[in-house]
Amino acid sequence: MNEVNAAIITIGDELLIGQTIDTNSAFIAQELNQIGIWVKRRIAIGDVKEEILKALEEQSRDCNVIIITGGLGPTADDITKPALCEYFGSKLVMHQPTLEHVTYLFEHVFRRPMPLLERNRKQAEVPDVCTVLKNERGTAPGMWFGPSPTTTPKVQDGAKAPSRWEGDKDSDSAETSDKKSFSSLSSPTGGQGGVVISLPGVPHEMKGLMLDSVIPKLKETFELPVVLHKTLLTSGIGESSLAEHIAGFENKLPSHIKLAYLPAYGMVRLRLTSKGSDQTLIKNELDDLFAQLKSLVKKWMVADEDISLPDAVIRLLKSKKKTVSTAESCTGGNIAHLITSIAGSSAVYNGSVVSYANEAKKDLLLVKEETLQQFGAVSEPTVTEMVSGALKELKTDYAIATSGIMGPDGGTPEKPVGTVWIAVGNNKRIMALQHSFRFDRERNIELTTHNALSMLYRFVKEEEGE
Amino acid sequence: MNEVNAAIITIGDELLIGQTIDTNSAFIAQELNQIGIWVKRRIAIGDVKEEILKALEEQSRDCNVIIITGGLGPTADDITKPALCEYFGSKLVMHQPTLEHVTYLFEHVFRRPMPLLERNRKQAEVPDVCTVLKNERGTAPGMWFGPSPTTTPKVQDGAKAPSRWEGDKDSDSAETSDKKSFSSLSSPTGGQGGVVISLPGVPHEMKGLMLDSVIPKLKETFELPVVLHKTLLTSGIGESSLAEHIAGFENKLPSHIKLAYLPAYGMVRLRLTSKGSDQTLIKNELDDLFAQLKSLVKKWMVADEDISLPDAVIRLLKSKKKTVSTAESCTGGNIAHLITSIAGSSAVYNGSVVSYANEAKKDLLLVKEETLQQFGAVSEPTVTEMVSGALKELKTDYAIATSGIMGPDGGTPEKPVGTVWIAVGNNKRIMALQHSFRFDRERNIELTTHNALSMLYRFVKEEEGE
Repeated sequence: MNEVNAAIITIGDELLIGQTIDTNSAFIAQELNQIGIWVKRRIAIGDVKEEILKALEEQSRDCNVIIITGGLGPTADDITKPALCEYFGSKLVMHQPTLEHVTYLFEHVFRRPMPLLERNRKQAEVPDVCTVLKNERGTAPGMWFGPSPTTTPKVQDGAKAPSRWEGDKDSDSAETSDKKSFSSLSSPTGGQGGVVISLPGVPHEMKGLMLDSVIPKLKETFELPVVLHKTLLTSGIGESSLAEHIAGFENKLPSHIKLAYLPAYGMVRLRLTSKGSDQTLIKNELDDLFAQLKSLVKKWMVADEDISLPDAVIRLLKSKKKTVSTAESCTGGNIAHLITSIAGSSAVYNGSVVSYANEAKKDLLLVKEETLQQFGAVSEPTVTEMVSGALKELKTDYAIATSGIMGPDGGTPEKPVGTVWIAVGNNKRIMALQHSFRFDRERNIELTTHNALSMLYRFVKEEEGE
Repeated sequence: MNEVNAAIITIGDELLIGQTIDTNSAFIAQELNQIGIWVKRRIAIGDVKEEILKALEEQSRDCNVIIITGGLGPTADDITKPALCEYFGSKLVMHQPTLEHVTYLFEHVFRRPMPLLERNRKQAEVPDVCTVLKNERGTAPGMWFGPSPTTTPKVQDGAKAPSRWEGDKDSDSAETSDKKSFSSLSSPTGGQGGVVISLPGVPHEMKGLMLDSVIPKLKETFELPVVLHKTLLTSGIGESSLAEHIAGFENKLPSHIKLAYLPAYGMVRLRLTSKGSDQTLIKNELDDLFAQLKSLVKKWMVADEDISLPDAVIRLLKSKKKTVSTAESCTGGNIAHLITSIAGSSAVYNGSVVSYANEAKKDLLLVKEETLQQFGAVSEPTVTEMVSGALKELKTDYAIATSGIMGPDGGTPEKPVGTVWIAVGNNKRIMALQHSFRFDRERNIELTTHNALSMLYRFVKEEEGE
């Protein structure tokens, strides 16, 4: 079995001027990694045909899988299809099933009735050497170039289009005969043929196509190694100290197992990765090492899976059958947002009062006027009363409260920007801590949010006797 | 004047397995773009020395500026510095001012007192051919390789380190004498010397170094063209229809001016970009074309600057001296979060009740028990009462309310996943609209949030007689 390497090419000027953050690549990389395909490189280039051709040429030298996203929209700045035609010595032909699908979307699905324009019809055109992957969520189809396990590209001398969806039971099964040979793609890895896959850049359309079509087809096309990851989340210890603490463990790791440190928001994720051919062997070895690692970092561990902190908090509360609410001033709803982003959070989460104005602190969270007068909104007494108010008004077992100065304005000599009070509590006790973050508004909000969730996690663990 | 092209290389296995989303590249691209440096490519590679060397070699062929981020941390998987040493035929030497800075951070700044470990000391080591850029926000310094305007790299035969911070007034001013010649970098663009800049991957540290050191130094090092962008935000029209509507305008654009469509969350940004050498000429021409474009899309325009929708809403409310509050069920605090992420939002925003539980809708937003019984939480009467409740309890001029089923669970045949009611109103009238989103939870929340803000924007415009 040989290694299967992938390159991800994202296309669009908006990536190069920084107007869009590329979240697609991370998703694609995750999915490929899970099935044992290693992403060697991610490249973002502009809407320029020559750049696309150059990237395809370069990446095909040592990657057997190339996934391209973007540049398939209906507007004039989208250039991916012409570039693919040139690369494969192919030409655009109308794909009838896609045209029917596009027409259907326009007539029956899109919310506002919209006219089907010529530029929308053109989205159903594909290079005549590809296998078309149906895009259930939008108008631009996915395209698979190269050997395909269940169905194969159909090449016509004339303009006859590939006439079926990928996956049709009765599709022909001829050898691929792309004009651009794929043998160059396969050579560096010893015989596994290469594929180029083009997907739309709209995230949910790309995701649907990856999960519905691309991943299953890649699994059928390539003999893949086993890659396993085990991740745990720690809080309350820095990357360097953690590394020092587990240096002995790290130094003894076999060479096919890698340990990575992934710091974020005052937390550090530790990830063990193993790669090989024998699933059972690899799994047992990794499980054993992961158990060792867990016991080494037990003191700081928040979760022993690759989940987010809000997810860890929700699981803990669910397992204890407890509820929580939030009273947010400086985090402005971000704690609520992170919690409610997780499906099923309504079982443990009743809601939040985002008390941005002091009036709201008094009216909705029962903070006393005297407290605000005497100590100010950013103070231990205020966040403590906010917790009490949330427990009472939102009727929960636990509550979190935040109040602080996030910047850039609002700081004073006594309470500079970054001064934050966080409190967590239940009906028995309330605990408050002051922090001083020295970053920009965005990061101060993120840090406060994550510190609050981390504090709640520890508080619940203690209260529930763990 | 020649074109200055840049490549951004981000280093880290976490990018290739998709555990981290790369936000650094977007920031760097934005900043470079503003000073007239065009980013040709963004590349993400793993913590592998050979890959770093290969990327440097390839990108130096047609880019005069290469910015590398990541791989400078204190742990064993960080490989950037050894790779840079090999590329420049250089070796690591201790940089005394950086060591003092690192020591200071550990002893006086970090919140928890932490021991200064050998691996932290090593962060002060740099290749002996670089100019060191002081990192005010962390331990890993920035490194500038190549001709430098205010100070130049110092190369010693022995192990003597570059002894000053970049920018020291009294620093020497010798010719660069990197062992790896930079002439290859400059050749494709006709004489402007090339530079390689290495920055830490921690976003706020990278941002600080970019703004404090890298951008000013690049402006001094290169003769740069003028690049101007003008962006406007539209809502309520699709990308295709918009393109059709302004096709005449687009077709008549001169070749040095580009129009880009940037769709997101049911909105479309339009961006005009112009590039040239004469600032005044370019600006006048672009202003003129932008005015034409604005009048063409007036009907759908939400903002005529490159700002976010929440920012546009806040500016509108500020200009009218009005306030708003939110009553969020299905958006779970995300509207509040987006609003409060913007500095100065407290002038127009009083707060939110995130009424995830029905109890909270009744207790804090005064929604009637009968209304919930008869129509359910996801209904026009409920969101209408939520708006009334928010107006009253949070004492604002306007209010937004959302209630819906975000998925994956909770749908019924009558109200499937994606059913959403949004209402906006003031004390004179309340308007409610039903939506049906058919995506995943995350996207349904985003779409509801943006539709709610867009609806508020239009409502305020109408009410305030615009």
